[in-house]
Amino acid sequence: MDEALERLRDLPYEDLGFAELDHHRALRTGFPEVVLGEGKTAEQVASIAGKLAARNDRLLVTRAGPETYRAVKDAVPDAVYHATARAITLDRSGEAKRPGVAVCCAGTSDLPVAEEAAVTAELMGSAAERLYDVGVAGIHRLLDKMAALRAARALVVVAGMEGALPSVVAGLVAAPVIAVPTSTGYGASFKGLAPLLAMLNACAAGVAVVNIDNGFGAGYLAAVINRQAWQGAPE
Amino acid sequence: MDEALERLRDLPYEDLGFAELDHHRALRTGFPEVVLGEGKTAEQVASIAGKLAARNDRLLVTRAGPETYRAVKDAVPDAVYHATARAITLDRSGEAKRPGVAVCCAGTSDLPVAEEAAVTAELMGSAAERLYDVGVAGIHRLLDKMAALRAARALVVVAGMEGALPSVVAGLVAAPVIAVPTSTGYGASFKGLAPLLAMLNACAAGVAVVNIDNGFGAGYLAAVINRQAWQGAPE
Amino acid sequence: MDEALERLRDLPYEDLGFAELDHHRALRTGFPEVVLGEGKTAEQVASIAGKLAARNDRLLVTRAGPETYRAVKDAVPDAVYHATARAITLDRSGEAKRPGVAVCCAGTSDLPVAEEAAVTAELMGSAAERLYDVGVAGIHRLLDKMAALRAARALVVVAGMEGALPSVVAGLVAAPVIAVPTSTGYGASFKGLAPLLAMLNACAAGVAVVNIDNGFGAGYLAAVINRQAWQGAPE
Amino acid sequence: MDEALERLRDLPYEDLGFAELDHHRALRTGFPEVVLGEGKTAEQVASIAGKLAARNDRLLVTRAGPETYRAVKDAVPDAVYHATARAITLDRSGEAKRPGVAVCCAGTSDLPVAEEAAVTAELMGSAAERLYDVGVAGIHRLLDKMAALRAARALVVVAGMEGALPSVVAGLVAAPVIAVPTSTGYGASFKGLAPLLAMLNACAAGVAVVNIDNGFGAGYLAAVINRQAWQGAPE
Amino acid sequence: MDEALERLRDLPYEDLGFAELDHHRALRTGFPEVVLGEGKTAEQVASIAGKLAARNDRLLVTRAGPETYRAVKDAVPDAVYHATARAITLDRSGEAKRPGVAVCCAGTSDLPVAEEAAVTAELMGSAAERLYDVGVAGIHRLLDKMAALRAARALVVVAGMEGALPSVVAGLVAAPVIAVPTSTGYGASFKGLAPLLAMLNACAAGVAVVNIDNGFGAGYLAAVINRQAWQGAPE
Amino acid sequence: MDEALERLRDLPYEDLGFAELDHHRALRTGFPEVVLGEGKTAEQVASIAGKLAARNDRLLVTRAGPETYRAVKDAVPDAVYHATARAITLDRSGEAKRPGVAVCCAGTSDLPVAEEAAVTAELMGSAAERLYDVGVAGIHRLLDKMAALRAARALVVVAGMEGALPSVVAGLVAAPVIAVPTSTGYGASFKGLAPLLAMLNACAAGVAVVNIDNGFGAGYLAAVINRQAWQGAPE
Amino acid sequence: MDEALERLRDLPYEDLGFAELDHHRALRTGFPEVVLGEGKTAEQVASIAGKLAARNDRLLVTRAGPETYRAVKDAVPDAVYHATARAITLDRSGEAKRPGVAVCCAGTSDLPVAEEAAVTAELMGSAAERLYDVGVAGIHRLLDKMAALRAARALVVVAGMEGALPSVVAGLVAAPVIAVPTSTGYGASFKGLAPLLAMLNACAAGVAVVNIDNGFGAGYLAAVINRQAWQGAPE
Amino acid sequence: MDEALERLRDLPYEDLGFAELDHHRALRTGFPEVVLGEGKTAEQVASIAGKLAARNDRLLVTRAGPETYRAVKDAVPDAVYHATARAITLDRSGEAKRPGVAVCCAGTSDLPVAEEAAVTAELMGSAAERLYDVGVAGIHRLLDKMAALRAARALVVVAGMEGALPSVVAGLVAAPVIAVPTSTGYGASFKGLAPLLAMLNACAAGVAVVNIDNGFGAGYLAAVINRQAWQGAPE
Repeated sequence: MDEALERLRDLPYEDLGFAELDHHRALRTGFPEVVLGEGKTAEQVASIAGKLAARNDRLLVTRAGPETYRAVKDAVPDAVYHATARAITLDRSGEAKRPGVAVCCAGTSDLPVAEEAAVTAELMGSAAERLYDVGVAGIHRLLDKMAALRAARALVVVAGMEGALPSVVAGLVAAPVIAVPTSTGYGASFKGLAPLLAMLNACAAGVAVVNIDNGFGAGYLAAVINRQAWQGAPE
Repeated sequence: MDEALERLRDLPYEDLGFAELDHHRALRTGFPEVVLGEGKTAEQVASIAGKLAARNDRLLVTRAGPETYRAVKDAVPDAVYHATARAITLDRSGEAKRPGVAVCCAGTSDLPVAEEAAVTAELMGSAAERLYDVGVAGIHRLLDKMAALRAARALVVVAGMEGALPSVVAGLVAAPVIAVPTSTGYGASFKGLAPLLAMLNACAAGVAVVNIDNGFGAGYLAAVINRQAWQGAPE
Repeated sequence: MDEALERLRDLPYEDLGFAELDHHRALRTGFPEVVLGEGKTAEQVASIAGKLAARNDRLLVTRAGPETYRAVKDAVPDAVYHATARAITLDRSGEAKRPGVAVCCAGTSDLPVAEEAAVTAELMGSAAERLYDVGVAGIHRLLDKMAALRAARALVVVAGMEGALPSVVAGLVAAPVIAVPTSTGYGASFKGLAPLLAMLNACAAGVAVVNIDNGFGAGYLAAVINRQAWQGAPE
Repeated sequence: MDEALERLRDLPYEDLGFAELDHHRALRTGFPEVVLGEGKTAEQVASIAGKLAARNDRLLVTRAGPETYRAVKDAVPDAVYHATARAITLDRSGEAKRPGVAVCCAGTSDLPVAEEAAVTAELMGSAAERLYDVGVAGIHRLLDKMAALRAARALVVVAGMEGALPSVVAGLVAAPVIAVPTSTGYGASFKGLAPLLAMLNACAAGVAVVNIDNGFGAGYLAAVINRQAWQGAPE
Repeated sequence: MDEALERLRDLPYEDLGFAELDHHRALRTGFPEVVLGEGKTAEQVASIAGKLAARNDRLLVTRAGPETYRAVKDAVPDAVYHATARAITLDRSGEAKRPGVAVCCAGTSDLPVAEEAAVTAELMGSAAERLYDVGVAGIHRLLDKMAALRAARALVVVAGMEGALPSVVAGLVAAPVIAVPTSTGYGASFKGLAPLLAMLNACAAGVAVVNIDNGFGAGYLAAVINRQAWQGAPE
Repeated sequence: MDEALERLRDLPYEDLGFAELDHHRALRTGFPEVVLGEGKTAEQVASIAGKLAARNDRLLVTRAGPETYRAVKDAVPDAVYHATARAITLDRSGEAKRPGVAVCCAGTSDLPVAEEAAVTAELMGSAAERLYDVGVAGIHRLLDKMAALRAARALVVVAGMEGALPSVVAGLVAAPVIAVPTSTGYGASFKGLAPLLAMLNACAAGVAVVNIDNGFGAGYLAAVINRQAWQGAPE
Repeated sequence: MDEALERLRDLPYEDLGFAELDHHRALRTGFPEVVLGEGKTAEQVASIAGKLAARNDRLLVTRAGPETYRAVKDAVPDAVYHATARAITLDRSGEAKRPGVAVCCAGTSDLPVAEEAAVTAELMGSAAERLYDVGVAGIHRLLDKMAALRAARALVVVAGMEGALPSVVAGLVAAPVIAVPTSTGYGASFKGLAPLLAMLNACAAGVAVVNIDNGFGAGYLAAVINRQAWQGAPE
Repeated sequence: MDEALERLRDLPYEDLGFAELDHHRALRTGFPEVVLGEGKTAEQVASIAGKLAARNDRLLVTRAGPETYRAVKDAVPDAVYHATARAITLDRSGEAKRPGVAVCCAGTSDLPVAEEAAVTAELMGSAAERLYDVGVAGIHRLLDKMAALRAARALVVVAGMEGALPSVVAGLVAAPVIAVPTSTGYGASFKGLAPLLAMLNACAAGVAVVNIDNGFGAGYLAAVINRQAWQGAPE
């Protein structure tokens, strides 16, 4: 076995359930651990968060309600709550945020997912340019933001309903577009299936898709791409 | 039973299979009979077309290949073939075509459906403004056509892939948009399911949807709406 | 860029979340702004409604419960609540309602969607003829209403279960039929998928479909078509 | 084990593949054996048909093309071919056909399934009243046939597209309606899924559904019901 | 129009929402009106039930909870509640129940649907033989009941999970089998889709299917078939 | 890294496309390599088969037509063709076949899948007891085979249509049942989805499911289970 | 009828609803009865459990909450509650647990299903080796457990999300893998459909799948396979 | 309108159907035009290719068979055919290929899609490291390639069947993973739906997904990301 395997063998790990996954990534990448708050009690999340905060300078808890935040704050007093994103973060890194990530959506109902993406990208060292009123049914507002769109090295585009925004945006920029379908809407949206399929069929090249409502995954990927643009390859 | 039933009772009809359906409509509306060519032999279509042409001044056969056209031409020498639309028409009405219908699509692969809509609308007395290079990934071309889009009383918007065009168009005009998903594309298009769902979830008001690849249905509806705009109510 | 783009550039807009979409339409069309009440707090809706009522003579809030109405009424005292439609309206226009829209359904369980369509069409200046006991299993009642059906310039046909009503109605009239599937029913209805697919496959020409339970969208489209019939083209 | 098990034990059977299934039924019911022609070679079908014809006075092969018929005719010279139904029958029983079964559909494209149902019912001793031009988009033709509809003890109603015909028919009669969705149509028909779901959600009581294109199953069931109406219980 | 239309014209009807549907059937067939309790308030149901009980000697309310029953009992003191079936009935007809209907299921979780079928059939004049412990995984119990199975003129077979019971039963009897899939189960049951598809593909002839959980529809159809067996054709 | 990793590192492998997968298994288990014939040319299969036959005493090619067999026979003259199973095998091991595997199905249309399972199990050292006429619609034939069913240590149960056979068999035996849905059937079978869902919802414990038409996978698993029963654990 | 049928005839059974199914299995196999707690009241479960405990030395109740446990404990004081598995067991057999079953999953969210499998296997006489931190995204931890994986005679592999773990595990071992998809996850997981389909398409031979979240079924099957490995065939 | 709109206005375009889409991109990005060969005649493709080659130094035609290549070669003699990828390319740019893109798959059946991705990335200026024998069922081979995996700035991971490879790879690297599901496989693969859903649910962060079989889209995106890593932001 090669050197990579050697390194794998020596990785320490703790029994932290879901969080372990990104723990190993963190060792390789400097990116923060992530705790999925959904399906865990406030106490469980607080316990995990406390352990992580003792070993890392950054922390991210996603899908966390106010009650979970109160429990985490007891364990990690400098944790910050992002109400719209439903995310808890901690950033003691002092790292400056570099520009290059833009997060786009059409308005109110997609904000929680867009904010989850933005908060994630920020915690990973990217400044997130928020463009939150750019739906396809009012195309002039999108065109008004073209300078900001084109300045980005990676774009997260969040949309529910017909999921058309990523196609339109990708037709205007050259940078990668990470599309996030949302489960907002009703009826033939089928909980986000409609925008998911639309985005997978985007007629513009340069679009890739993450799971429905997965703002975290999109923000993570945008930050990785942006980081590469200023750092070069991962190793 | 009221007077309407009285009129129903007196309607003549012949055993023409699929064609009967629109036959009755024709008596009420002056619109042409329609024969669905798919699933019928060239001889069957020619026989039906001959009977219809003997009684009407217009004729429409949809989904007809060249072989079917040759058979129909023997029975109805002045029938015309529209190769892209795969449609056969006859129009001895001498009716002038009135403007008011626009048919939009993004290009090559959606042309057969768009042309089926345009040919149908024309046979029904509307001039069809064709706007065939207006995909969402190159939004500037769509904006270039805004005068034509806004002049229409009814728009047929044909799209495959992510099916976003109707939403964008409906955001730019005030007239009704009839959206037609197409079965072009591959993979997660699932034979047109992706644009169908997208169009049903259009975020812009003023959009209604017909079956996948149903150019005829969309052209028919656009012509009915346009006719009402110059004639008033149907009766 | 042409004149249309010029006009686009000058459009004022406010950050009103979902409502912005139709705001721009309103400038072009004279039709009211629309607020989707679902997924917003009563306070959020009241705040948006107050701002809209200060600038427009009409207002529509859809999917609003009684609590939302109470909050809106504090901000807009002359707002009216339509309990079955779950809609809040304001109409200071003094515009006379013109006949031409008919709204059909089979009874109790589809009433909220049918009423949403009717209230929407009325706010947009059309009188709505309500035909609410015309299911396909008792066809004689439908035939009894034929005079009213045929007098309409645009018909909204709401149906759950097998979704057959639009086909039957479209076979009796020449005007456009906007079909609305509903999520009533159980089992193999799959939350409205059954009538949605049925309506998309309507054997009668002249039918187009909107999203499941989208009474607003259907009423809006019927009113647009009816208005065109008395006004001519949008520009 | 009771007497029924005793009888089961003594049943003779041969290795005839698909045909065995109905062979046992035949011993109990006097109804014919059935061979599904699809997926078998002409020779295989002819071999099975020959063995069956040697032991029974009736024979039914479904989904058989002309080539299969020629092979069967060599083995069973008095076999009859029903081209539209794609069925081969033999009836040496001399049994008089009793009225009571009606088979309805809207026209051309559903004829093969309707005919399969009619031929099946006839072979089982019922006369089949064919009502083949009664689609929901031309409701007056259906009403014209009301006497025939109401005279039936069991109705087979075949429909593709929106699958509305069974609901309308069941609203007009008191006898059981066996609904058969067909795979005709295109796009959002999804090979018969649309009419299948519609029929399962029929708003009229008294409707039950068989598999897509299963004309045989519907004709069989209608004949069983009709036979009971003149014979009483099966034992 | 023929005599049937004459009769249709004279039918009285009241605005009773869902109940109207079967009201007209009742005039033709002598079968009771049916009120779907689901989605109505206890007061609404009681009001409808009171009106129906004033004009008919039988009454059926399906999907009614105890609270609805209490309200109905105030309006119709001799109404009876069937807790497992969640049905309310009234039967002042004094009609003797005739044997011929069997209702089968495998046990606890399918009992509500099976009982809804049995109560419906009984109200319509058929005695319902209940065979409630006959699942396919313990085939000997089914075989033990073969005398009862074979005595039936119509069988309702209720099953969730793999939905195999109708196939097995139909292989043992000659009478029609009305299959009812149930939404019990979890995971890949997809709320009853699994047994629904299974039953539509039943390898035994003589099976037809109603909607998921539609015990009423199956019991109604079984009673209609049984009645025909002792009365002959409907007219 | 533990000893297992050491062994992994030393595994030789060749670039044989699909075949590599089982190649490694073979080193650990003594079971044969498997080549999926579908999607490869006869020449490609023959080339792979020749290399494998040079290193192993057994060979299995699945989904191979007669043309592929002829090409393989040129390269491996003692290869044997199983026409119904569409499989090519080679067995120079001289290993005696041990009893313990039973393969069940209902007849003609499922035979290719059942035979693929049987041939696979045999090549892996198990004798396969074939029970091929045991459908659920003729339950007495299944009961007739109960001694054979109960003697098996592992059962492969193949079924299309309603997919009920595994549930019934598992209710009669104590050994594991590997269920294989088939894509035979039509309409609401949806290419095997119906029996797949049915089998996943089997009400009898002791059933696990493999992919639609995956006779190889089921035969493989049955042979592994049977081998364990005579050999004990794999190491 | 053969001897097996004789034994079937003599089987005693009680009306215990769902539990009957496995009751008969128990007589043949020595394995415990199983009560599905879901959908039953605490009192119903306690009553069934009491009767079973009076006749058997083992008991299993699945999907039981704490309240149900309290009711069962009153009836069966030595019953044990497994909170994570949501299972109640009783084991008075004194049987030693034999090694051979391994249960694998990736962490927190799949634990309830994995524990249900482990508790089931244990009650059936197998020791369950729990490997609960072996997700595919941290492959080194899986490799670290290879000795334990390879020692098992039957493996239960539980996974949600992309459902990849069974494929990876099956590539490392020679023993049968019973895969259990879970309904954890969100969006395009579609309540477990994603891992279900993934597992059915596992590229490694030796994988079979049970229903979503069916830990019981997988544990049962693993225990049966393990028992055969030390006992030989069932009879 | 801002400067971006000014630039949009001046863009030249030709009526080249599908190709226009990327034409505009090319002006902004220096990336090649793309022609989708599928659904066009050889002559149509040759005509488009000829025009493009007259204006650009690079050309890409995807999904092109040998016949299409022969026609293109007549028009563009230095065009190159990639038989496995089914792609035609032209590269007169003389640009050196920079390392940074890796393309992974498990073998034979996924090669066409993987090669389409590799050829696309190469034409766009990236060297493509091909890792084509790294399926999840033989995990040691994947680990053997870890140095190559970790050296990439962007990875394309192609997989059919259970679609697990992207999750496993993303757990080993820090660079972005573009996952491509393929339509290979059978049965419950449902033409690529299974790996598509699996990839959307990847448990490892850093994965985004493109349409089924969309090797072009993945290669394009990987090249864009790689280019940014050496060039910085797009403008």
